[in-house]
This record gives sequence, C-alpha cells and structure tokens, in this order.
Amino acid sequence: MKYTIFGESHGPAIGVTLSGIPAGIELDLAAIQRELDRRAPGRNPWSTARKEADRPELLSGVFEGKTTGAPLCAVIANTDTRSQDYARTKDLARPGHADYPAFVRYGGFHDYRGGGHFSGRLTAPLVFAGAVAKQVLALRGVRVGGHISSIYGICDDPLEDWESLSAAADKPFPVLNDQKGEEMKAAIAQAREELDSVGGSVECAVFGLPPGLGSPDFGENAEGIFSQYLFAVPAVKAVAFGAGTAFSLMRGSEANDPLYVDEDGTVLAEHNCAGGINGGITNGMPLVFEATLRPTPSIARPQFTVDLAKGENAVLELRGRHDPCLVPRAVPVLEAAAALAACDLLGV
Amino acid sequence: MKYTIFGESHGPAIGVTLSGIPAGIELDLAAIQRELDRRAPGRNPWSTARKEADRPELLSGVFEGKTTGAPLCAVIANTDTRSQDYARTKDLARPGHADYPAFVRYGGFHDYRGGGHFSGRLTAPLVFAGAVAKQVLALRGVRVGGHISSIYGICDDPLEDWESLSAAADKPFPVLNDQKGEEMKAAIAQAREELDSVGGSVECAVFGLPPGLGSPDFGENAEGIFSQYLFAVPAVKAVAFGAGTAFSLMRGSEANDPLYVDEDGTVLAEHNCAGGINGGITNGMPLVFEATLRPTPSIARPQFTVDLAKGENAVLELRGRHDPCLVPRAVPVLEAAAALAACDLLGV
Amino acid sequence: MKYTIFGESHGPAIGVTLSGIPAGIELDLAAIQRELDRRAPGRNPWSTARKEADRPELLSGVFEGKTTGAPLCAVIANTDTRSQDYARTKDLARPGHADYPAFVRYGGFHDYRGGGHFSGRLTAPLVFAGAVAKQVLALRGVRVGGHISSIYGICDDPLEDWESLSAAADKPFPVLNDQKGEEMKAAIAQAREELDSVGGSVECAVFGLPPGLGSPDFGENAEGIFSQYLFAVPAVKAVAFGAGTAFSLMRGSEANDPLYVDEDGTVLAEHNCAGGINGGITNGMPLVFEATLRPTPSIARPQFTVDLAKGENAVLELRGRHDPCLVPRAVPVLEAAAALAACDLLGV
Amino acid sequence: MKYTIFGESHGPAIGVTLSGIPAGIELDLAAIQRELDRRAPGRNPWSTARKEADRPELLSGVFEGKTTGAPLCAVIANTDTRSQDYARTKDLARPGHADYPAFVRYGGFHDYRGGGHFSGRLTAPLVFAGAVAKQVLALRGVRVGGHISSIYGICDDPLEDWESLSAAADKPFPVLNDQKGEEMKAAIAQAREELDSVGGSVECAVFGLPPGLGSPDFGENAEGIFSQYLFAVPAVKAVAFGAGTAFSLMRGSEANDPLYVDEDGTVLAEHNCAGGINGGITNGMPLVFEATLRPTPSIARPQFTVDLAKGENAVLELRGRHDPCLVPRAVPVLEAAAALAACDLLGV
Repeated sequence: MKYTIFGESHGPAIGVTLSGIPAGIELDLAAIQRELDRRAPGRNPWSTARKEADRPELLSGVFEGKTTGAPLCAVIANTDTRSQDYARTKDLARPGHADYPAFVRYGGFHDYRGGGHFSGRLTAPLVFAGAVAKQVLALRGVRVGGHISSIYGICDDPLEDWESLSAAADKPFPVLNDQKGEEMKAAIAQAREELDSVGGSVECAVFGLPPGLGSPDFGENAEGIFSQYLFAVPAVKAVAFGAGTAFSLMRGSEANDPLYVDEDGTVLAEHNCAGGINGGITNGMPLVFEATLRPTPSIARPQFTVDLAKGENAVLELRGRHDPCLVPRAVPVLEAAAALAACDLLGV
Repeated sequence: MKYTIFGESHGPAIGVTLSGIPAGIELDLAAIQRELDRRAPGRNPWSTARKEADRPELLSGVFEGKTTGAPLCAVIANTDTRSQDYARTKDLARPGHADYPAFVRYGGFHDYRGGGHFSGRLTAPLVFAGAVAKQVLALRGVRVGGHISSIYGICDDPLEDWESLSAAADKPFPVLNDQKGEEMKAAIAQAREELDSVGGSVECAVFGLPPGLGSPDFGENAEGIFSQYLFAVPAVKAVAFGAGTAFSLMRGSEANDPLYVDEDGTVLAEHNCAGGINGGITNGMPLVFEATLRPTPSIARPQFTVDLAKGENAVLELRGRHDPCLVPRAVPVLEAAAALAACDLLGV
Repeated sequence: MKYTIFGESHGPAIGVTLSGIPAGIELDLAAIQRELDRRAPGRNPWSTARKEADRPELLSGVFEGKTTGAPLCAVIANTDTRSQDYARTKDLARPGHADYPAFVRYGGFHDYRGGGHFSGRLTAPLVFAGAVAKQVLALRGVRVGGHISSIYGICDDPLEDWESLSAAADKPFPVLNDQKGEEMKAAIAQAREELDSVGGSVECAVFGLPPGLGSPDFGENAEGIFSQYLFAVPAVKAVAFGAGTAFSLMRGSEANDPLYVDEDGTVLAEHNCAGGINGGITNGMPLVFEATLRPTPSIARPQFTVDLAKGENAVLELRGRHDPCLVPRAVPVLEAAAALAACDLLGV
Repeated sequence: MKYTIFGESHGPAIGVTLSGIPAGIELDLAAIQRELDRRAPGRNPWSTARKEADRPELLSGVFEGKTTGAPLCAVIANTDTRSQDYARTKDLARPGHADYPAFVRYGGFHDYRGGGHFSGRLTAPLVFAGAVAKQVLALRGVRVGGHISSIYGICDDPLEDWESLSAAADKPFPVLNDQKGEEMKAAIAQAREELDSVGGSVECAVFGLPPGLGSPDFGENAEGIFSQYLFAVPAVKAVAFGAGTAFSLMRGSEANDPLYVDEDGTVLAEHNCAGGINGGITNGMPLVFEATLRPTPSIARPQFTVDLAKGENAVLELRGRHDPCLVPRAVPVLEAAAALAACDLLGV
C-alpha cells in the first residue's frame, strides 16, 4: 500500500490516494469515522476551536461496499476556513514552522494560509489511510494501539497489552493512567494561559506481527521502514524502538532479552527491550516505539522573526486557532502511520 | 547515490556497490583509508582483538584516478577469521542478536559464523561508501562530523562547530571533552571486567546544507530520509533531531528558534532546537542528530536462551572477540550514514 | 513528478494525484482543456457515443493560479454512465480484455462496469497529468508531439518536425497526410460496419531534450524509462525507438547515424535512426518512438469465451458504446505519457 | 531481487550484486556456467575473437552451497584486454555508440576503453544474475527460453513450446529451423566480409507464470516491468509482446484470443496474440515477447564522425575485435533479463 496525501488547510479539500489495497475488503466506514473523530479538532479545551466534520467521500476503489484493489481516493472537504486570519502575517516566518524553508523550497508559491500543505489538518487523510490499513491488518490478526506516553515531563504508565491501549483509545484523553492524564491536562491548560504550548510523546505498539519480517539492509530494515512513516507525521522529531534512548544507560546484561520456548514451541523473550526487532527483523514480540513531538510552534506570545518579503527582522504576534499541545490528537495519527508501516513490512 | 553492502563476516570478502557517483571526482584514497582506520578493530583495549587491514580493492567505477560515473564496487578481503569459535554455539540464539529472527527470515540458511551478514564488520564497506560521499559533499561545501555524545550515562560536551568535531575525529576516542572521555573509558573497562557491555549515543552534524531540501511528504522529508540511513547502522535503536526527546519537556517558547537576518541577508536561527529541519525541509542551520546504540549484545556472561535446532531452552556461554562498547567505533559509521543521507537529500 | 490515477469508469469520479510539480508554474487551464478535448469521446463517427464534458476540478496544489509545489489532485466527474449495459454480461470474460486476469488478480471484487479501473476512460486523467507536464517542459524548451502513424496497415507520412506535428494536433483526425487519413477513416468505418475493430500505431517525438540524460544501467536508461510510461497506456503492445523494428533489417553502415559538428559547435547526427538515444542516454536529437495499439477488444460480433461465475464455456454478444479504433484518441494520451517520461528523465 | 551490474570492459573486473535472493537455494554452478558459456565470446566465426573464461567468483550470499538470503556478489575477472586498440581513436565518437552522449553525461571521465561500462561484455554478469533467477523460477515451475527470431530479415520459425526452445539453447546458433540458421549465418558472414554488421531480433517466452500478476497501473503493469529489464540490454531498440507490431495490421476479431475452459477447469486462450498479458496482468498463457537488436555499431568501414576533444569533424576507422552480429550471443542475455523480470513480477 502506498499513499499520497494532497490538499492545503484552506484549499477546497484535502484527501489521500491509497494504492495497493487488497481487493475484497468490506470497509467498515463507521470504524474509519471513529478514527477520524479521535483526531478531529474542536471537541476539547486542549484542541483548536476549528470545527470540521471530516466526513470522507470515497471517489474510487470501492464497489458494492468492498475494496476493488484499484487505487482508492478519499476526499474531505474544507469548510470552516478563515483565511483572513493569515493574510496579515503572511510574510512573517513563524518560528518553529516550515515557513522559511518552504519559502526557499517552493519559491514563495506555497499556500501560506493556515500552514497550507504543512498544516496538521493534513493528518486527517493520514488517519483515513491508517484506518483502512488497520482493517487490512485486522484480517491478519495484527492490531495497533497507542497512548500519550508523556506531556511536558509528566509520564503515563508504561504500555502493557492491547486491551489497555484499546480502552485508552475510547477516552477523550488517551492515557492509561487517568490521574496522570489530569496532571497532563493541567500542564496544557497552564501553558495555554501563559500563551504558550507544550511538547510530549506518544508510545505505540503493533501486536501480532509474525517474526521474520524485514532485513538488516538499507531500505529493508524494520526500524528504517517504520521511521520513514513516523517522521512523515508533522512535529515528530525523535523515534525510538523498545528501550530506545534508555539503551544508552544500559548494560548488555540488562538490554539483552533472554529467550525461552513456551509450551507451544514459540520462541519468546522475557522482556521486550528490543521493541520487537533484532537486526532489523521482527522477532514476534510486540513492535513498540515512542515518538517525541515538539510543542505546537504556533503560540500567541510575540516572537522575533524575519519578514521574508522585506528581508528584515520583525516581531510576530499570531492570532488564529491553535492546539496548545499536539500530543493528544497525535495518538491516532501515529497509530495510522504505524498501521501503514506494518502493512509495508508485511508486503501488503 | 545508492549503495548495496554485501558480504559475511567469515566469507571470502565484504564490500559495497555504489551507484550514481558523479563522474570526474578525484578520489582521495588516503582519506578513505583514514576513515576505515577510524572504524577498524584491534587497535584499542575497548575494541575487539580481531585485526583486519581493511584495504579496499576498487574493481570498477574509477579510471585514471577519477570516478567514471559508472557503479563503483569496492571489495575488502576477510583474513583474520576464526570460524571454529562459532560452530560450538551455532544453534543457540544469542539474546539481543538477530539469530532467532534471522533463523525465521532465512529458514536457517544464513551464514551464522560471526554474525554473518549481520556482523558489525559490514560497517567497513559502509564507511567506505560514506568516505566517498564525504568527498562528493566537500566539493559542495558540505561537511559531516560526529562525536561520542554519551556512554553509559556519561555525557560529552554538546557539539558546537565543525572545527571541534574535526579535532575529535583525529582522536583514538572521539570526544570533545577528554576528561569525560576518560570516565567513559573507565565505564567500558569496568563493564568488560564484569563480562558485560555498555550502550551509548553518537551525535553528528552536517554543516553547509543549503535551506530548501526535502518536503513534508512521506518519502521526501529530511528526517525520514536521514532516519532510513541511520537505522540501517547495526545497533541503532533511536534517532532524534535537534533537541530530540527533550522536546517532550519543552514549551513552544523555548523550542521555537527565533529567526533573524544577518548582515548578508541570510536568514538564521538564534538556537538550533530544530536541528536544521522544519516541516521536513532543511532550514540552512547545521543538521544535527543523535543516534542511540544499544550495548553490545555479545557478552561473556551465561545467558538464558533457546536452542533453535532442538526447540529447547538452553544456556549460552559465548567466547569469541567482541567490543565491550560499540559506540567509539560507531562514530565514523554514523558519519558515513549521514554523508550518504546528505547526498540523497541533495539529489546527488 | 509522480502520478497516481484513480477511478472506475462508472464510479463517482476519476482523477489523478500528481506530486513533484515544480512550484510557481502558472497553469494554462485552457491548454489543459484542449488536451482533454483532443482525447474526449463522442465527437466523431470513429469514437464511442459516450459524451463526457471532462472538466477537471483542482482540489489542491494550486494557489492563486500557480502551482504550489504540493501534490495536485484533479478530479473529473463521471456523468454519462449506463451501468445497465454491463450487468447482463458481467460474468462473461470479454476476449482481449483484462476480465479474466483481473478476476484472478482481484478475486472477483473489481468494478466490472464499463471496464472499471481498466477503462480507456482512465486515460483522461493521464492526459490531464501530461498536459501539466507539457507546461513544465515548455519552460525548459522541450515540446512533445505525435500523430497517427498507421491504422490497419495504412501508413501516414513519417514525422519531420515540431511544426507539422503541432498542425496535426489541431485536426480532429491527427495525421500529417490527410489523404492517408481519409483511407484510414474508411478502414475504420468498414470495420465498424462489419462489427469489428482495427489496430494501428502512434508515433511521437520529444524535441529539445538536452544530450546526456539517462544511463546504460537498469532503471536509469532512457528507453526503459520511456517504455514504462508508454506501456502504462491501455492497449499498447509494442514500443520502438528510432528505426525500431526496422533495425532487424539493417546493416550497421545504414543504422549508424554519422555525426558532425554544426556551425555552433553542436554535435548532431545526419539521420536519427537511434531515435535520440544511444546506450540509454539522450544524444540531443529528437527522441522518437512508435507505440503499437491493439484493435479495440470490444466488438459486437459473437465471441467464444468463458462464464467466470459458472466456469463454463459461453458465447458473448457485447452491446454498449465502443470505439472501432482506439488510435485517433490515443495520440494525446501517448503524448501525455511521453511528457511525463521526459519530466522523469529530466529529473523534474 | 534487485541487481546492480558493475565494471568496465578493460578494468580489473566486472560483476553483479544481486539482492533479495530467497534463502536456501542450492545453486547449480554448472548450470550457471553453461549460461555464461552460451554468451561467451571467441567460440564462433560470428563472434568477437576476444577470449574470456568468464568464471564467476562468488564473494558473498552463499554458504555451504546454498543461498543465504543476503546479497550475492559475483565477480568475473577481465583477462584478455588490449587497451592499446582504443587509445588511438579515443576522442572520435563512434557512430551508433554512446560515446558522444556518455561524453556529455560523464563529462569525459568515463572509461572509453572497449566501450567501458557500455561494453557488451557487461552482459556476462547479467547472464549470471539471470541464471540465478532461472533457478529461483524453476522451483516455482517457471521456465524461460528464447531463440533468434530473425537476422537481417531472415526469419526463424515461430516458437511453439518449451521443449523446442530448450533444444535450441543447446545449439551454438540458437534457432528452431537450422536451415534458416544457415541462411542467417551466411548473411552475417557476408556482412563481415563487407566490413559491415547486421541486426536482428530475439523471441523469448516465459512458461508457467500463474495468471493474476501485475496491474494496469503505472509501475506495476507486466509489460512495463518486462520492458524495463529488456531495454537495459545493450542494443535493444524495440520490445513487443504477443502479436506485437502486427496488432497494427489486425482486426479485433483476429486479435482477441477466444477463451475456453479445459477439462481441469483452467481458463485458456485459443491463440496467444496477447502474449500472456491482458490489461497489464498475466493471463496464464506463456508470456511471449520479441526484442529487436540494432546491428553492431562497431564496423571497420570508415565513418564520418566528430573528434570530441577538438570539436571538429573527423573520419573514424575502427580496429579491434567486434561481433558482426550481436543477436546470437544476445539470446541468453534476453532470457536472463526475462528471468529477472519474471522474478520481479512474481514478487520474488
């Protein structure tokens, strides 16, 4: 499965073209909508006030309710667009955003309104694609789940199994430990009050992947394949598998997962420091990763920056509607990226 | 430039085929050899005792000392191989290694001796390819450097500029702060004494990349491109750009790099939390990343594991020659991976 | 530039997602429409009676009339669909069509109505993409033209220059020699009367490509790159460059194009047997190819075939609206494929 | 399976790196050598007098006689090199060769001796790779065969089945009809006497491919995949599937292969005009194609050309050793390309 996401935040529509879907899959459109709703804005104090129904229209690739095997194009109309918010500051490169590199890359011709093609809104079609991928995976016994693992240094409990992640997915604020969730919300609320934003991290797991997928070689190793999908999610700046950066603090005797054979003859590991991957190949344990997301770059405080049209220093005061923390809405997005990566690894 | 690394640790030879090298580059073979020597084993108490000259033979792609533009194949003979070390334990999956997933992936037909194609020895041809890439980059004013950023929790000073990294590259133990280096060496020595190993991390920077390379889209974003090269280095389990995982502890007001125009009209950032990349596109600041490496999985302590031939639980006692810490020799390897990634991003 | 065509003949819409378009190109929508009109059905006795306005709607990638550099999605609604024509014969594999292999490939889940995703109608978005590519090429001084080179053995004059192809493009029946065109039309009309169809060929040339594009290697050679685009056009069964299959009848002394230097120091060839390519690399002469198209497989005569649902032999009598010859409408389609291939070769 | 061919005609060695070979295949080295011998020069009056043993050395990817699943690198040493033949005319672009476009492409830095990386000698590693691919295919019941279908207008009988192609493969001059073969040899001999060369064509078939491989879409269709492999063979200028260019002379009623069910329930076609592919997907019939090869460009007659160093018109008189016809030795090369393409289509 290959995907191409198109659209700009304030253009007529956003969407995704998804090729290589196996034929004959009865798409559960309600389940797709639930995933989109998990990501949708305008529902909580910690997300932007922009309201979008995010109802995808399927233009192709589905016939009589089932996938045809031909490319599927899904389109989501943009409705609640307030472009005038952006014209005032269009030449001022927003710090932490891609405005300046995009200005160079696209010669100033990119759609600047609301971040254009760089907008977090473009994660809606990614969630759509991931929701399709999840249904493809489910038929192979593979499931993907995630949770907020930290916000501004406040950590959720470590993930244990699919059931707890599945329960977290039904919460408006997807954590395992709700008390920690309340602390995180407080940190977000305080940042918002102070016209600021906060960063955090999301941990996901893919359960049910068979051992033997991937290779040690460039372009084929499981970590490399996953990371390419994960870094395509806006605001992700770090990706770690299993024990991740904690490996740098460990001894081999702690980091090596001892192996054993269970009663069915399956080879399992006592711990899962490796995050389900050794030498670029899946080992049958859950594939676990953590992605770190930077704080929302759009903040209402005055910021020093550059007027790209004039080539002069300037001060930016942003208005508009912005999440003070991207992490809660990013959970279904990273699950989507992981689901697409898992399909890639499985050769679906 | 595309590369394919071939070879097994105890086969006749290892090597790399490198396509897409620009024609007419006068290869500095001494500089290539210096990079290989930085990685070579057998020179220090903290590296394996295996000694290999690692002299690459160029079979193609070079004519009268200059690259022809056709694929270059470089071969490095294996000489100091002691295969008998491995036969005794060949059915025992080494914990932390790819033995079990490789057994599934390759049906038990992979060359098990010394890790076979999974061996760290395969990073020698990667360093060769990276050394060529560095010469291609140098002609475009792009330079790559790295240092040990931490071992077992002992941190080197943060990187500042090309000159200090260049000085570190000449040291047998490539750190910026030699006192910290001594502490790291002591931690390695102690782990070795206790028949154990330690992990750590490497920080690298690419200086001189122009702004405007990459895109926010899947397969084209700068972080995604780099991460694919970095995770192809054995033992790398986490990759972070700029402030990396520390973004999860930050506010937007700290994480947003304020922009300004210098006297030449160049747009620069006050800090470089973004690590030279915004929205998947380079911004002209140094591209900075950190890669975390797990502790060497080969340790001499007895470990619980599985006999893959018998399908039974077993205890493994490894002999052979192993680095108690992979990190020092990994610095030139990660620089090589970064150099190849930078060429990819530049469309070389 | 990469494209993904989506849609089915009788689904809600067809379209194309086009990535990698350079930013800042002022799209000439009227020129795009002219290309679509050259391909559009329902205008001539030699094409199907199905009438479609084929007005593309741009969902993304264009802002204030210019390309943004982000993926462009163009959608063309399906309006004149008569699905009932197809239900009657849906289990009967149409000989010469992909019905049987598609049945195997997609497990019977593909949209069978009007050929579904296999329909010649899907060449409309391809023409759209090619029209964008032509505008990208024009800014680099590269132009693409084509003509019907033969139908049922009646041959047009050989192509000479851009001007004559450009004049042919304005004709409803794009040939260089109109008298030959009348003979071709008569052959088509006679085939139609006899409830049959005829095949033919299209010759195209790309003018203005610089020398030095491509490589002898797999995946990079100019003929290989072009052929992949050309064989993606439905009904194309043979692709030949320059003298093409006539090379098999030639001596080296005839086939070798003698070279000379013109007054500007440009190296040119006396003839162009090579079709602008030697050793997989462009040589600066016009890149010339011929594509052979099979006769329309949909014919009204009774045909022996198989009922795929019953697994029994059967006789098929097709109704519906079909071109008795695909070749005239295929000229802009092959030009589009060539334009996309030329962009690929140029690294646009 | 992906391959990279490296080497230059007069460099130290040529070879191929082949990735993605399934593990556990017991390589039949004698069979590989037989394929190399079919292509090898110096054995017949119609081939160049250069003699090369063409004994491949396997550097990796094979352990205890079986493939490991890791990349296999095979190297063939160059021994019978007479570089002085080439120095005299090195600045004179040989008409019909890639000298001029390579000069532009590689800035004059390519190895000019004996055609360098463009040499027909580079087809030896391609035959090696194809011989491995044939063994992979044989385990899936897929077989590839070919024959000379025409030389200078003298046509062999049309191919019928695997047995006759297999018998042809054992002949020094691989035709089905030996009397036609004698006529072809006479045409070659006469061209050689007249210091000239002749072109021709090769027809191949892949037997045993299951139906349902490929797709109508760009990059996935069976003709497109095959053509990319076939055009990577030097001197190939046209590729046609099934009835090929004869489709342009046909009516639909002739071109449509009527379908029927055989006693086992298999869907078969009466004829095979489609060459085993409909709509870009295999249909279970033999996949048949014809490739046209241009006459050997190296001829001993004086030819008008350009001195690239001086930028002046010049006359070239070539010496050296050249085949007066490439076609006989090209049969195993095109079979090799077809075998690699078939593996690609099968997803091996």
